[in-house]
Amino acid sequence: MVNEAALDAFYKTVDQNQDDYVERLREAVAIPSISSMVDHRDDVVRMSHWLTSLFEKLGIKYEVRDIGSHVMDNVDLKLPPIILGTYGNDPNKKTILVYGHYDVQPALLEDGWSSKPFDMIESPKGQLIGRGASDDKGPIIGWLNAIEAHQNAEIDFPVNLKICFEGMEENGSEGLEKLIANEADKYFKGVDAVCISDNYWLGVTKPCLTYGLRGICAYKVTVCGPGKDLHSGVFGGTVHEPMTDLFHLFSKLVTPNGDILIPGINDDVAPLTDEENQAYQSLEFSLSELHSAIESKTNIYDNEIETLQHRWRYPSLSIHGIEGAFSSSGFKTVLPAKVSGKFSIRIVPNMEPKRVDELVEKFLKDEFAKLGSKNTLSTECLHSGKAWLANPNHWNYVAASKAVERIFKCKPDLTREGGSIPVTLTFQDALNKNVLLLPMGRGDDGAHSINEKLDRSNYIQGIKLFGAYLHEIASCKAE
Amino acid sequence: MVNEAALDAFYKTVDQNQDDYVERLREAVAIPSISSMVDHRDDVVRMSHWLTSLFEKLGIKYEVRDIGSHVMDNVDLKLPPIILGTYGNDPNKKTILVYGHYDVQPALLEDGWSSKPFDMIESPKGQLIGRGASDDKGPIIGWLNAIEAHQNAEIDFPVNLKICFEGMEENGSEGLEKLIANEADKYFKGVDAVCISDNYWLGVTKPCLTYGLRGICAYKVTVCGPGKDLHSGVFGGTVHEPMTDLFHLFSKLVTPNGDILIPGINDDVAPLTDEENQAYQSLEFSLSELHSAIESKTNIYDNEIETLQHRWRYPSLSIHGIEGAFSSSGFKTVLPAKVSGKFSIRIVPNMEPKRVDELVEKFLKDEFAKLGSKNTLSTECLHSGKAWLANPNHWNYVAASKAVERIFKCKPDLTREGGSIPVTLTFQDALNKNVLLLPMGRGDDGAHSINEKLDRSNYIQGIKLFGAYLHEIASCKAE
Ligand SMILES: [Zn+2]
Ligand SMILES: [Zn+2]
Ligand SMILES: [Zn+2]
Ligand SMILES: [Zn+2]
Repeated sequence: MVNEAALDAFYKTVDQNQDDYVERLREAVAIPSISSMVDHRDDVVRMSHWLTSLFEKLGIKYEVRDIGSHVMDNVDLKLPPIILGTYGNDPNKKTILVYGHYDVQPALLEDGWSSKPFDMIESPKGQLIGRGASDDKGPIIGWLNAIEAHQNAEIDFPVNLKICFEGMEENGSEGLEKLIANEADKYFKGVDAVCISDNYWLGVTKPCLTYGLRGICAYKVTVCGPGKDLHSGVFGGTVHEPMTDLFHLFSKLVTPNGDILIPGINDDVAPLTDEENQAYQSLEFSLSELHSAIESKTNIYDNEIETLQHRWRYPSLSIHGIEGAFSSSGFKTVLPAKVSGKFSIRIVPNMEPKRVDELVEKFLKDEFAKLGSKNTLSTECLHSGKAWLANPNHWNYVAASKAVERIFKCKPDLTREGGSIPVTLTFQDALNKNVLLLPMGRGDDGAHSINEKLDRSNYIQGIKLFGAYLHEIASCKAE
Repeated sequence: MVNEAALDAFYKTVDQNQDDYVERLREAVAIPSISSMVDHRDDVVRMSHWLTSLFEKLGIKYEVRDIGSHVMDNVDLKLPPIILGTYGNDPNKKTILVYGHYDVQPALLEDGWSSKPFDMIESPKGQLIGRGASDDKGPIIGWLNAIEAHQNAEIDFPVNLKICFEGMEENGSEGLEKLIANEADKYFKGVDAVCISDNYWLGVTKPCLTYGLRGICAYKVTVCGPGKDLHSGVFGGTVHEPMTDLFHLFSKLVTPNGDILIPGINDDVAPLTDEENQAYQSLEFSLSELHSAIESKTNIYDNEIETLQHRWRYPSLSIHGIEGAFSSSGFKTVLPAKVSGKFSIRIVPNMEPKRVDELVEKFLKDEFAKLGSKNTLSTECLHSGKAWLANPNHWNYVAASKAVERIFKCKPDLTREGGSIPVTLTFQDALNKNVLLLPMGRGDDGAHSINEKLDRSNYIQGIKLFGAYLHEIASCKAE
């Protein structure tokens, strides 16, 4: 049973201290911890110091893990550290691991921001506008605020917390996967479940819990012909052109309606169950939100449910471009000698990258043979990642759902997403524990865009949500 | 009747002075008159002065025509002048216009030249190696050497010569077309035929006369969808992707064997006549030359005749690239919002660019409609130029053919080319006179490549050829 009095005291403390929490976020936003820019690497490290100072203040034990260096823009740079934290060590409590990142995307006033991106302001509508406010400084500081509020309210913290904050998420999370794998039986030993707050509500009014992400298989398909680029006037019509072959080949991958034509590719797609289909009926989402996101009305499906199902639980295939062809403005009489088309397939349960690779390679080879071209074909898998799907009936989700009902007076949407968040699968595979994505911000926060914002209400209610979630975990029976 | 004694005296003088002609070419090559580089514009102008000095020495009347300025690499530059010359004004003689260019392609030792590109050397095999030796300084100086040899041999020059030398050929011939059109009834009044020496033998042993060039129609086909580039994870599978549409569309343009699939496009292609087909039987050309030119064996046709016919007298379609898609190395999860595919059709008699435009636009529109995409399509003709075909039975060709037989003891190949030399059509249209392409160099001269060369024998025999051609013109009956 949840200790209702304790929770009420926690809520009250959060409300009373909300201006302090906003100031704390402002301080963090002021540190331009952009991980993808050489000149800001020191700021990323500074941000790690800012966090460990707060850990010390709150009595969170921590280790700052040096994960080596990497080369970026031809500069050898030390990677920002991964901060591991431990708050509480009571064998009678569950242990929850929370992950977040303290680095941010680049931002310049000249990009079109309405205010300086690293001087957080609060708009009259209560939007806290600044780079990193929502992605991911608001959420990571949210966890720390929740700890502090328990201390201030003098109530017992309901779980043992393990913390993993990295500073390279916006730049490939270099070094993270290895550290997680190494620490699975060490620092992360005893973790019962994982919670990540680094995504968004589907819309702008209703909270959600996210239990699935699509994976990806990315390919580079190279057609080679002449030994060098040729003049199309002199040789056009007399040699097999790699571009012609590539267009024929890629036209056979997917229809303009998005149906993938590679035989067998859809065979492993998990069938849509009644229960799952039912869950789509109540989601907060409208086509007008899609239209404003894509800035056009070129959606394939004329209804919300099919649109979301094709974003979340069906595979898709996109052609990204061609390397080696003429790509500038204007015109050039070139017959490109060697061209590499790039495409990727977003994969879903129960598709396996290895099987997808086989099907793709066989299909391309067979179709290329049909062309009767003397050019040569090669296919390379550039990158792949499995889809992620958690059990949304696990106590981790049940606790989060109850917490949402407490704070927002409604059941959360159960959502999936179309893109990948690789760390999700990394934790699930390394720890073999349930992973929950519990977003703090809204669907229109503009995480990687100009005028990134976090609504004050999402921030403050989010802190309460995190606390309530941990209290619900403490009181749930199942393991 | 040709004055055989005069011609013999001319040949003898050319042979006696051949080392001076080589020195003269060396002097010209030493001026790096690269028209496409800002820093070398002064050298192009210097080259024009070098030429007019020679005109003065030889008593050629000339006018240096200022054709204004242009902007290149953001610099406002005066265009190199067009040099117009007149040698002789006898109403009883025919008047022949010769065209050439005194600018050259860029060249750097670092590009892989075996010797300094602007310090002409003579190899043990008698190759004069240097930038511009063959394209086009050898030929234009060839005409002047022929004049000088007549003076030295004290024989009458057989025709009136009009000269048109430009300094922007390697950079778009800016200003030339307008000048020719303006001067058709003025400076070029009374011209009976045109001769251009700015192309090459088909192979390396047999001279040719060139009487046809393909034209071109170039297109930019734009497919627009979302208002901005999207993340393929979030939106893949739910929106119509411009890249998918473009690949479907372009796959319908041409087969991997080079057959154009646009309905009606082949209807206006002039049928191959028996006489024309017969002329292909004796051409000096082998597939092994093609293989070494394309550095592969990816030719469509397994015989020389079809290969040349598809290079010269049938249309071809080449896809050059895509603007707006991902074109770098590596991978990017982008769903491009607006992509423009570029392709061009090499056109032949009797195809008309306007009709080709209509067929292309209708076809793309019809095929796009079949895709059922909500994206939008637009087609733009970027550039077009008609094919050029001269009458190879005209006295201008007959004279050149007889001259070849005199110098080389064989009938020349009658060739066409696959690319365009726009000035050819410009002269033909403006003057309404027969135009002949009479090459001096060999097919392996490497005009725009490293180690450009002109064989000493081609240079010296070429000077004789030019003279003999003018004598044959003087003696031919027909007008
Ligand atoms: Zn994030
Ligand atoms: Zn982010
Ligand atoms: Zn030239
Ligand atoms: Zn040239």
